[in-house]
Amino acid sequence: AEKLVSSNSELKEAIKMAKPGDIIIMANGVWKNTEILFSAKGTKSQPITLKAQEKGKVTLEESSNLRISGEYLIVKGLVFKNGFSPTSEVISFRKDSKTLANNSRLTEVVIDNFNGPERYDVQAWTILYGKNNRVDHCSFINKRTQGVTLIVRLNTAESVENNHQIDHNYFGPRQNLGSNGGETLRIGTSHFSMMNSKSIVEYNYFDRCDGEHEIISNKSGQNTYRFNTFFECKGTLTMRHGNETHVEGNVFFGNGVSNTGGIRVINEKQTVINNYCEGLTGNRFRGALTVMNGVPNSPLNRYVSVKESKIEGNSLINCDHIELCAGSDSERSAIPQTTSLSRNLFVSNSPKMFGIFDDISGLSFDKNIISGAIESPSKKGFTSKDIKLIRNEKGLLIPQGKELGAGAQIANFANRENTGVTWYTSLTVDTPFDSGNKIEVNSGLNTLYEAINNSKPGDILILTDGTYSTSKSIEIPHTLSIISNNKAKLLFETKALFTIVNGGSLKIKGLHIDGEEAPDGPLNSVITTSKYSMNKNYKLFIEDCDFINLDVNNYFNVLRVAPSTFADTVSIKNSTFENISGAVLALNRESDDIGIYNAETVLIENCSFKNIEGAALDLYRGGTDESTTAGFLNVAHCYFENVGLSKKNKKGTSVSLLGVQNANIENSIFKATAPLDFILTVGEPINIIHHCQIEDSQILNIEGEGFENHNNSSEIKIGDDNKPVGLLK
Amino acid sequence: AEKLVSSNSELKEAIKMAKPGDIIIMANGVWKNTEILFSAKGTKSQPITLKAQEKGKVTLEESSNLRISGEYLIVKGLVFKNGFSPTSEVISFRKDSKTLANNSRLTEVVIDNFNGPERYDVQAWTILYGKNNRVDHCSFINKRTQGVTLIVRLNTAESVENNHQIDHNYFGPRQNLGSNGGETLRIGTSHFSMMNSKSIVEYNYFDRCDGEHEIISNKSGQNTYRFNTFFECKGTLTMRHGNETHVEGNVFFGNGVSNTGGIRVINEKQTVINNYCEGLTGNRFRGALTVMNGVPNSPLNRYVSVKESKIEGNSLINCDHIELCAGSDSERSAIPQTTSLSRNLFVSNSPKMFGIFDDISGLSFDKNIISGAIESPSKKGFTSKDIKLIRNEKGLLIPQGKELGAGAQIANFANRENTGVTWYTSLTVDTPFDSGNKIEVNSGLNTLYEAINNSKPGDILILTDGTYSTSKSIEIPHTLSIISNNKAKLLFETKALFTIVNGGSLKIKGLHIDGEEAPDGPLNSVITTSKYSMNKNYKLFIEDCDFINLDVNNYFNVLRVAPSTFADTVSIKNSTFENISGAVLALNRESDDIGIYNAETVLIENCSFKNIEGAALDLYRGGTDESTTAGFLNVAHCYFENVGLSKKNKKGTSVSLLGVQNANIENSIFKATAPLDFILTVGEPINIIHHCQIEDSQILNIEGEGFENHNNSSEIKIGDDNKPVGLLK
Ligand SMILES: [Ca+2]
Ligand SMILES: [Ca+2]
Repeated sequence: AEKLVSSNSELKEAIKMAKPGDIIIMANGVWKNTEILFSAKGTKSQPITLKAQEKGKVTLEESSNLRISGEYLIVKGLVFKNGFSPTSEVISFRKDSKTLANNSRLTEVVIDNFNGPERYDVQAWTILYGKNNRVDHCSFINKRTQGVTLIVRLNTAESVENNHQIDHNYFGPRQNLGSNGGETLRIGTSHFSMMNSKSIVEYNYFDRCDGEHEIISNKSGQNTYRFNTFFECKGTLTMRHGNETHVEGNVFFGNGVSNTGGIRVINEKQTVINNYCEGLTGNRFRGALTVMNGVPNSPLNRYVSVKESKIEGNSLINCDHIELCAGSDSERSAIPQTTSLSRNLFVSNSPKMFGIFDDISGLSFDKNIISGAIESPSKKGFTSKDIKLIRNEKGLLIPQGKELGAGAQIANFANRENTGVTWYTSLTVDTPFDSGNKIEVNSGLNTLYEAINNSKPGDILILTDGTYSTSKSIEIPHTLSIISNNKAKLLFETKALFTIVNGGSLKIKGLHIDGEEAPDGPLNSVITTSKYSMNKNYKLFIEDCDFINLDVNNYFNVLRVAPSTFADTVSIKNSTFENISGAVLALNRESDDIGIYNAETVLIENCSFKNIEGAALDLYRGGTDESTTAGFLNVAHCYFENVGLSKKNKKGTSVSLLGVQNANIENSIFKATAPLDFILTVGEPINIIHHCQIEDSQILNIEGEGFENHNNSSEIKIGDDNKPVGLLK
Repeated sequence: AEKLVSSNSELKEAIKMAKPGDIIIMANGVWKNTEILFSAKGTKSQPITLKAQEKGKVTLEESSNLRISGEYLIVKGLVFKNGFSPTSEVISFRKDSKTLANNSRLTEVVIDNFNGPERYDVQAWTILYGKNNRVDHCSFINKRTQGVTLIVRLNTAESVENNHQIDHNYFGPRQNLGSNGGETLRIGTSHFSMMNSKSIVEYNYFDRCDGEHEIISNKSGQNTYRFNTFFECKGTLTMRHGNETHVEGNVFFGNGVSNTGGIRVINEKQTVINNYCEGLTGNRFRGALTVMNGVPNSPLNRYVSVKESKIEGNSLINCDHIELCAGSDSERSAIPQTTSLSRNLFVSNSPKMFGIFDDISGLSFDKNIISGAIESPSKKGFTSKDIKLIRNEKGLLIPQGKELGAGAQIANFANRENTGVTWYTSLTVDTPFDSGNKIEVNSGLNTLYEAINNSKPGDILILTDGTYSTSKSIEIPHTLSIISNNKAKLLFETKALFTIVNGGSLKIKGLHIDGEEAPDGPLNSVITTSKYSMNKNYKLFIEDCDFINLDVNNYFNVLRVAPSTFADTVSIKNSTFENISGAVLALNRESDDIGIYNAETVLIENCSFKNIEGAALDLYRGGTDESTTAGFLNVAHCYFENVGLSKKNKKGTSVSLLGVQNANIENSIFKATAPLDFILTVGEPINIIHHCQIEDSQILNIEGEGFENHNNSSEIKIGDDNKPVGLLK
């Protein structure tokens, strides 16, 4: 029978009374603080259904979640938004550890931006337990906090060999988490990775799932991933643990976006056939195709070496990096064995498509085709051809002309239209800088404060001439630009001038910021991030600005971030920093050493740092976790003088980099400054300093491997771009 | 004329139009988000008044403040509560740095618990600028965040020699801030300390002003402090900078409360006469009477040595410590000179009343009287007498019988009744533990969560037998006890079981807490404090509890505090800790080294620590600021085995103390554990370890001075209390 319910108590009662074949219909409307326990027993022919009166018109909001427990249950058409679950998952296929769901289905359900405030509190959105369950045509959009979006668990006998099916779902954008725990899909855990899961993951669409290196983390045996589409995802389908994985007919579009990856092979008896990768730029653990080295007799939580695996008939078109024996080091010394790469098609304009990090003699190559420019990784098994590509009606590039006998041919795969729900549009959009109105702001006391409070996302505040004094703490709640064409002067009496709060991003340009009226206490800053949680990434751009007299008391920083805040980008150009008692950029607040860090990309160009008591830059990424690799840094044409020499500067450095993956410091001058520290730890870091005028090379402190130091000396006058080192005129 | 206004715009208009003699009357009611700029010009005979329609019935709430600017202005009868100022002060005697108030008066105004959320954002409650202003009969109650309650500033010529009068105010309770910036009254700054202020501070009542060591921080010349009463204040009237201070007729009642202090003398030409101190227990910088050593040729912000000063006719009754040449060290080597102590009366049952830290030859003593037991600090100038005291009608103890010719005689001084306003009662009270109802809680899923959400301040939740599982994060919002008589078992699936939030305090007793169901991620804890700001101090008591299996992932702590949270007391008794991947007590989150710390008093008695990967205790107080002296630690009859030896334990210690003032570790056993670190830094620390069974004394790492190490060895079996070392049976 059908039963329409319109309150939590009616819903509970209806569930309690439900018989096979019943349909419980939740009335249209907003259901706040609703924790549903859908515990019932249907039959194969007569399942019990819980569904929305109209799809998309039943929303579960605030503190809500769903547990499904029993047999032959169907949940359909619900939307979770505007809130978060009070427990560690939003939807769980169990009541408790002993009472699971089997033969049940979650279909056409939406979870959108349903995130708790704490960025690093772990919460999954959907966890599958039991057997023979299906999740299909669901939309999972804007997961922002730590925890996997969709998990299949195998933690008890009742959940192994589960034959779950995960199909036609839309996995929407997931921002860079800046930590492990940003996977979009995980099946199993290392502890149970020798168990078979037998899950099928097919026809799903992964849209910009950038949470971490593993879009998918396979951690159990005999799973199938096929006909899924990965659109501009900054990670890979990773066979992290478990054997006999079948990866077939998947499509990866990188579109040249940085760090986009493909398929990473680890473990034994893996099958990777007929997949299509195009425009992927990632390297190392995020290569288009990565075959890892393993650890000899690996413990369950490390890396089992690749054996008896087959990589066949895949297309790797215009991808930057194919990595063989990746991760080779003193621990990961077990090379791939008895593994074949055959009939794959590699197309690239760059000769250096293949990276080879160890002995590839355990790999056999046969009938692979490479385009003309590519340097062959092996004497046999590769044929170089001049290849012309055309895009077929499915949107894939295929070789023109006669049959090559190599590369992928995929008839059907997921697209945006046949995945997820069709009746829901996510309201969460990121506002670009400068997309709003231009608003003139006059000088005076708290005029800027008022203007910002009245601003809308994307607005540009234009400061006319004069002095802008601020006595109230300014919060930046959305994307905002503050610019001056005449170096308007900003004074402030608050501990921080600008606090970027959750959802905010800031661009400042042409400002003259003077700290002389700041309070006479330690730890002032010009810009800070919210001490309260920020589960949204932010951006900070500083251009043509001067910062002076930040010295009324100790440890006055330009930027002081709070823990659990994450910048996609911090960029500083054409700016000067002078007389500062603290640090300029302190991105060093994740000191727990668990792989969390404060900023992904840091760019500093044509800036001058003079008389800075603390560091010009402190960029810290502790821990050894490899699910993320923190940070890209570029410093070019900068000038450093008397930086970091204060006794109060604990680390005693002018630039301090710990765990930064890619650092490039070039064409700059370091004069009478404290040492630069490069501590290279996790991953395969590359830290380079070159063409810098350094008075004393003793000021370079290096720990770890991956450091390159060349063309630096007190005599260097011209950079590698043929311009004078130091500031550009 | 009188003008009744009932809106912000009417108020603005009335102020704008105000003429000498006018009275602007704010209508009764709650004025929310009201920032008043009272800028006007009255005359001596015709001042302009801004007042409440009825005293106490006009409240300024939420985001409100007051600036007074002009001449001959009076503000009367307002109340600030339920909010906080959007700027760095609540009431300011200026419009901006150029426009000050003179000849104006703030009277019968209340500021109660008007604190921003950020504990360490600096905010003053009232700042006096200009000249000839008066603050009288005001009540300042429950300041909780950083920043001085009442400040007199001398930062421009228009504010020196100001002749302000501060009288008959009630300075109500101010909790321990755990940082510099907890002063109740400050006059001047070090920078302007050679200027004269000529302020008069008289007949004020200071009630439990415990913010930091300086109740009053005098930092300018020619100020007078007289006839004030200090009731159980854990600090001193400190002549921090500036000369020619006159301190007369003040009364200090310590009532035996710990760390209560009196008068601290620094600088030149100071007069301390006819003051009365009783029952003060503090030592060193918080002695009943402290005469400091100075720094030779001291910079403005250090210590000028005492010269040409007079300490005469004061009574020091049943006080524990008179400190002469206090603070003597390699920097503070300039002893007091040409300073007399005469006709003072010292009464104590303890012979060790005087602490002498350097050469007292620059002090002259004359006609002082000491009671029989006291050891005289000097051969001349002290006469020992058998003194009987009686309490006079004013409440002061005076010698019985014939005139002694020494000690204080004070006819009038402040009391609770003649200070502050009479018509206001503060609603803010601290609820004691166990003052509420007893409530039985049955076992089951989230029954404890529900019970806590329904609890009231002071309640006692009694857990009956069984297992209590928790899948939602539990917040402790008020004082709460959770007890079990049968070791109820607690399991939890959340990152923390209990989060103490602002206003909360927790006592747990008789619980068996097992971490086996905690999430598989790093940084779990059993108890944590709010990541959001806590401007109220909290207490944590743990008794008869067992903690096991806190090891599902790395860095699982028993207690993990957040920065900007402060515990008055953390006490753990008769409890066991076993198989823990993190630390037991991690009170180490204030790593900025600016004198802030996480807990004042830590007591650990009769506890067992086994197989702990991190430290059993990490107590950190960085920086060299002397406005606070962090921490008292007592560890007695504990047992430590295999503690702190994990590679992941960065510091590599089992017990780590940095900057702890008073630490006592006794009668305990340390077996196969990582080293104990004692880093003694600021102040005059005393860290003692004695009567401990330690296998290898090499495990004691000591830095700094003040460490005592005795009766420790692998052979020690019996403690100094004649009981076996280690756990008491
Ligand atoms: Ca991962
Ligand atoms: Ca102080």
